[in-house]
Amino acid sequence: MASTLPPSLDSSAYLLAARGERPPHTPVWFMRQAGRALPEYRKVREGIPMLEALTRPDIVVEITLQPVRRYGVDAAVFYSDIVAPLKSAGFDVDIKPGIGPVVAEPIRDAEGVGRVRPVTPADVPYTTESVQQLVSELGGTPLIGFAGAPFTVASYLVEGGPSKDFAKTKAMMHGDPALWHSLADRLADVAIAYLAVQVEAGASAVQLFDSWAGGLSPRDYERFVLPHTARVFEAIEHYGVPRVHFGVNTGELLGLMSAAGADVVGVDWRVPLDEAVRRIGTPKPVQGNLDPALLFAGWEAIEPELDRILAEGKAAPGHIFNLGHGVPPNADPDVLERITKYVQSASQSAHVPA
Amino acid sequence: MASTLPPSLDSSAYLLAARGERPPHTPVWFMRQAGRALPEYRKVREGIPMLEALTRPDIVVEITLQPVRRYGVDAAVFYSDIVAPLKSAGFDVDIKPGIGPVVAEPIRDAEGVGRVRPVTPADVPYTTESVQQLVSELGGTPLIGFAGAPFTVASYLVEGGPSKDFAKTKAMMHGDPALWHSLADRLADVAIAYLAVQVEAGASAVQLFDSWAGGLSPRDYERFVLPHTARVFEAIEHYGVPRVHFGVNTGELLGLMSAAGADVVGVDWRVPLDEAVRRIGTPKPVQGNLDPALLFAGWEAIEPELDRILAEGKAAPGHIFNLGHGVPPNADPDVLERITKYVQSASQSAHVPA
Repeated sequence: MASTLPPSLDSSAYLLAARGERPPHTPVWFMRQAGRALPEYRKVREGIPMLEALTRPDIVVEITLQPVRRYGVDAAVFYSDIVAPLKSAGFDVDIKPGIGPVVAEPIRDAEGVGRVRPVTPADVPYTTESVQQLVSELGGTPLIGFAGAPFTVASYLVEGGPSKDFAKTKAMMHGDPALWHSLADRLADVAIAYLAVQVEAGASAVQLFDSWAGGLSPRDYERFVLPHTARVFEAIEHYGVPRVHFGVNTGELLGLMSAAGADVVGVDWRVPLDEAVRRIGTPKPVQGNLDPALLFAGWEAIEPELDRILAEGKAAPGHIFNLGHGVPPNADPDVLERITKYVQSASQSAHVPA
Repeated sequence: MASTLPPSLDSSAYLLAARGERPPHTPVWFMRQAGRALPEYRKVREGIPMLEALTRPDIVVEITLQPVRRYGVDAAVFYSDIVAPLKSAGFDVDIKPGIGPVVAEPIRDAEGVGRVRPVTPADVPYTTESVQQLVSELGGTPLIGFAGAPFTVASYLVEGGPSKDFAKTKAMMHGDPALWHSLADRLADVAIAYLAVQVEAGASAVQLFDSWAGGLSPRDYERFVLPHTARVFEAIEHYGVPRVHFGVNTGELLGLMSAAGADVVGVDWRVPLDEAVRRIGTPKPVQGNLDPALLFAGWEAIEPELDRILAEGKAAPGHIFNLGHGVPPNADPDVLERITKYVQSASQSAHVPA
């Protein structure tokens, strides 16, 4: 499907920035903006397990729209989870509240790898339906589709749940590289298939989350992860939608993550955006990077940080404002709204011709 | 007290490397080598809470010596915890098994800061006694004293326990800088006092752990942390013992952590040692940096990593081999022993004159 966006979408600040064109203001959205920080989210989700919620278009549409309504952000992000496509394709995984993805039978051998398969559109009619309805309701606001990158998804499947050190995953990489590559290869297919479903249904950008890649040395990333992530980006290139790539703690990896095929590189709070631009090497739009902890420090501490980030973002051919990681569940929605308005307004005035 | 070491200590591989002089082989020790990975440790600790164990010289001496006996490492590290001196000075903190330091009443205001005071030698006669006995038993093997750096200790006191994002700590830094600096200042005094007790009793090097500093941006580190850490290093300079500084995930901070006054800079596995040397800027010995996850990958995967690390370590005027973080509790002691022997032997043969 070629990219044929309605004019209003094409001129949206998010897509202009993601393409390195000049937007009317610096666009803003927040990773995990559709989530627990919003009381209206908690109300909708009450009593409904995460993975069940993701199969119900009424819930997915409502939750995805909530932050757009409340904050006036420049993009919606599809409400899903990186393990959702595995579950939809029959893999036994659950999401435990306050913990994250948990796998009853972690993958340790070829039999385990064999249990992983990509979704087909027939597996996820609710995804297609949700995206189509969202695109229709969102009008000129772009919808970002998303998927988990092979390493981060693999870490849950191999460790059995969230991990601090990824010891079993790294032991598999180094101790049985063939097994590792067969798993990562399948997970690349999973990501490709899930992103394809979302883009075919109308998502106008995609973000591939390799949230935990920062736990790897650049050497390990290049050898064990980059080829698989590159295949994901390459496989969706023909859609012509911007491809964003993000992980926390990836200061050492920004050049490689960019080289994997990202059109836009997400940056956490540790590396200033202008320094990130230098590490990326080739001129590309960047996304980020307010430290989420600053949300709790009071407006007087936040405002100068926003000014600094907007100034540093000018080093890139495009800047999408975001946090340096997801919205913390206990964040104050009023603060996020104020940040949205401030960034949109401050960046607009800066663009007024002299 | 000036440094007047017996000759055998002065010619120990660890101290020679830490001083940038040529050791007979690359010295090896492991952060958290005295710990749960050892069955003999688990046996000694059975039924004895951590903070109680630390007040008993018989236990501290035995546990500190265990890895020296078993692995033949080139240095012992004093068995303690970064919150031990707080506890000894009357602060209400506990160490919960499997969790870490836990504070019943987290510090959020000036009253809380007022509860923090440094130890005096009279508070910790057992520390003095343990160190003296250890130094006597260790003979030519150096004992490394240690303390927690202000930021990392503060993070436990402000958050109330281990944290992923240090949100409350960072909110205090940015939202109430005066309060933050008064807390960090007191914690610098705590570290200085605790290191002084250990060195006065005979420890021949010190390591200051800022384990979680890598959660900070360089900007925040420089403004909120560096001055306090620098004061710690400066205050103990007159002892003339090597001062080592370490935190995980500090690729962005290596130059600043070195500038704070470290004689030796510890490096985690994300940054190769030769690249670390470049970031440090001035020629200094380095310590590190095998990814602890590799311990589980089998010897065939480990050996080339050791060769690589030894080769990269030659970029520094001294290299102390270590893991890039602490020994995982489920590590196999046989693997650690094999690594010790391999590094000591491989580095020795490399130094044989041609």
